[in-house]
Amino acid sequence: MKKSVSFIYLLLFVSIVGFAQKQKKIQYPRNIILLIGDGMGTSQIFAGIAASKLPLNIERSKVIGFHKNQATNNFITDSAAGATAFATGEKTYNGAIGVDKDKKSLTTILEIAEQKGLATGLVATCNITDATPSSFIAHQPARAMMDEIAADFLKTDIDVFIGGGRKHFAQRKDGKNLVEELRAKNYQIANSIEEVQKVTSGKLAGFLADENPVKISEGRGDQLLVSAQTALNILKQNKKGFFLMVEGSQIDWGGHANETQYIVNEMLDFDKAIGAAFDFADKDGNTLVIVTADHETGGFSINGAKDGIIDGKFTTKGHTGVMIPVFAYGKGAELFSGIYFNNDIFHKMKKAFKFK
Amino acid sequence: MKKSVSFIYLLLFVSIVGFAQKQKKIQYPRNIILLIGDGMGTSQIFAGIAASKLPLNIERSKVIGFHKNQATNNFITDSAAGATAFATGEKTYNGAIGVDKDKKSLTTILEIAEQKGLATGLVATCNITDATPSSFIAHQPARAMMDEIAADFLKTDIDVFIGGGRKHFAQRKDGKNLVEELRAKNYQIANSIEEVQKVTSGKLAGFLADENPVKISEGRGDQLLVSAQTALNILKQNKKGFFLMVEGSQIDWGGHANETQYIVNEMLDFDKAIGAAFDFADKDGNTLVIVTADHETGGFSINGAKDGIIDGKFTTKGHTGVMIPVFAYGKGAELFSGIYFNNDIFHKMKKAFKFK
Repeated sequence: MKKSVSFIYLLLFVSIVGFAQKQKKIQYPRNIILLIGDGMGTSQIFAGIAASKLPLNIERSKVIGFHKNQATNNFITDSAAGATAFATGEKTYNGAIGVDKDKKSLTTILEIAEQKGLATGLVATCNITDATPSSFIAHQPARAMMDEIAADFLKTDIDVFIGGGRKHFAQRKDGKNLVEELRAKNYQIANSIEEVQKVTSGKLAGFLADENPVKISEGRGDQLLVSAQTALNILKQNKKGFFLMVEGSQIDWGGHANETQYIVNEMLDFDKAIGAAFDFADKDGNTLVIVTADHETGGFSINGAKDGIIDGKFTTKGHTGVMIPVFAYGKGAELFSGIYFNNDIFHKMKKAFKFK
Repeated sequence: MKKSVSFIYLLLFVSIVGFAQKQKKIQYPRNIILLIGDGMGTSQIFAGIAASKLPLNIERSKVIGFHKNQATNNFITDSAAGATAFATGEKTYNGAIGVDKDKKSLTTILEIAEQKGLATGLVATCNITDATPSSFIAHQPARAMMDEIAADFLKTDIDVFIGGGRKHFAQRKDGKNLVEELRAKNYQIANSIEEVQKVTSGKLAGFLADENPVKISEGRGDQLLVSAQTALNILKQNKKGFFLMVEGSQIDWGGHANETQYIVNEMLDFDKAIGAAFDFADKDGNTLVIVTADHETGGFSINGAKDGIIDGKFTTKGHTGVMIPVFAYGKGAELFSGIYFNNDIFHKMKKAFKFK
């Protein structure tokens, strides 16, 4: 009789767990990695796929969505309004860095993560004070105010940031030396990718160039991959979780230059960072990875290809307004299917993080 | 004691059902509706979305994928190789209608459905013997062989087909009158959309034009929507299920003409058919709807928009090679997430139908 009662309780437990698992649709991750391929529309992604002999890492993603990225003052968004929408959940005007359409500061997902005790990081292949990374940490009415944006970094406790733009910290119009201030705040300062790679814990400010890092074709090497891996190694040590944004910045510049091979090189480089993020999510089991772009650049089309060389054509030196694919991977990925607005990505990340 | 034993069996049953439901990931539909917007890439879809005040029906879809659509003999596919890949599961050469790269006939998903006792149908806003619809039912080495393709329709027991192309049945080079042969095979012949609309059961051959139906802007009206609804009403009467392909044919022609408003008009018209299919799936509960394109046409980009008027630009009068979005809705939709090849769509449909 006793045995039979235990058996009943066991079955009851299995039933309840089974039912609960069926009901619980969202899997909440502890960590979020947001990868932004600047200017990376459907054609830019496919140019990378078509140029590569092996499948790209981005093809490992099973959950796909699209976001509609119009700015408040323009059908065609720029990177500032686009990244601010991701970072804050509000659409704004072109040029706005972490502020709304009335230039009021908005709290970013990175700032909320910090408030909740998570680790945070930003990695880019451009000036770290450029529009995309800075929209997650700074609040300025215009993207060109890079010295002011650099000063905003000091107002936060971001754990890791790596990119170009040393100049806006060290050779400023106001004469301040923010690199020394960073050191005083216990940041380890790295001035090359080799120095970045040596840092395995603590706070890290990595400056890979005075202004923008060079192109892949000019010898940038695996700076993005190594920076992303270094950031992940440091951030994962926070048991509460982390938020990391990694930007493949120069896909956009290939579009602006109307240079197909520039786009392809930068896309393939960005895909290595995607692979590192997906591998991390596989191993960790508690990480959500989102891969998207702010907008498409160049009106780029693929009019042919032979032996991995893409015959690309362009309709503009600027951005276009087309919807942008979103690829999600890992825990909570299912939140990112369907068609929605760019600012919904903030709300989905907030939901995944269970932030109120 | 008896009560307690029954309770054990009840719990055992609940546990097993719960476990089985967790394991069974695929929901198998009885009916499949495949909607093909010819030449409809990411930009064409978004042109429709941006031109419309209300959300489009395609935005109701939560499962999104992409297919890679290269032909065996060309990086850029045409509609024949593209539709043959969907219809048969094999990539082939441009111009091939339901035949492989060695010109050998392949069995199509429509033919398998017919063999299994399901109802079948084809609807298009072009000549019904044109490349996209004919690749599901005909086997010819070249898409231009429209008289031969028309004769292939008679070799099947397709239940409903509606489109243009009366000429290839009634005024043929070989002098045969296939319309009379259709009548002898118990087809009801409709020569206008009003006549189509009157048919509520049995077999239907609907000829809406001698050659191609006119553009939306030239007064085609709701021919596509009404044709799709008529087909659904007839096909749903088969309790074993049905396969229906519906083509929004002229989105492609807007791309070839480099006419943005032509693309937008045809996209919005096609979206009405998408709405009818999704509504049917909602009501029926046993239907899978797939919305995709064979390829992109025009290298079309959206360089601005104002008051619903799209500023479109083009890079070619032909097709491009970019990957194409796939939207899936209803039972079994989850099979269509991720990035795959165009011919995988056949295998996914076959799996959804549980065909061996």
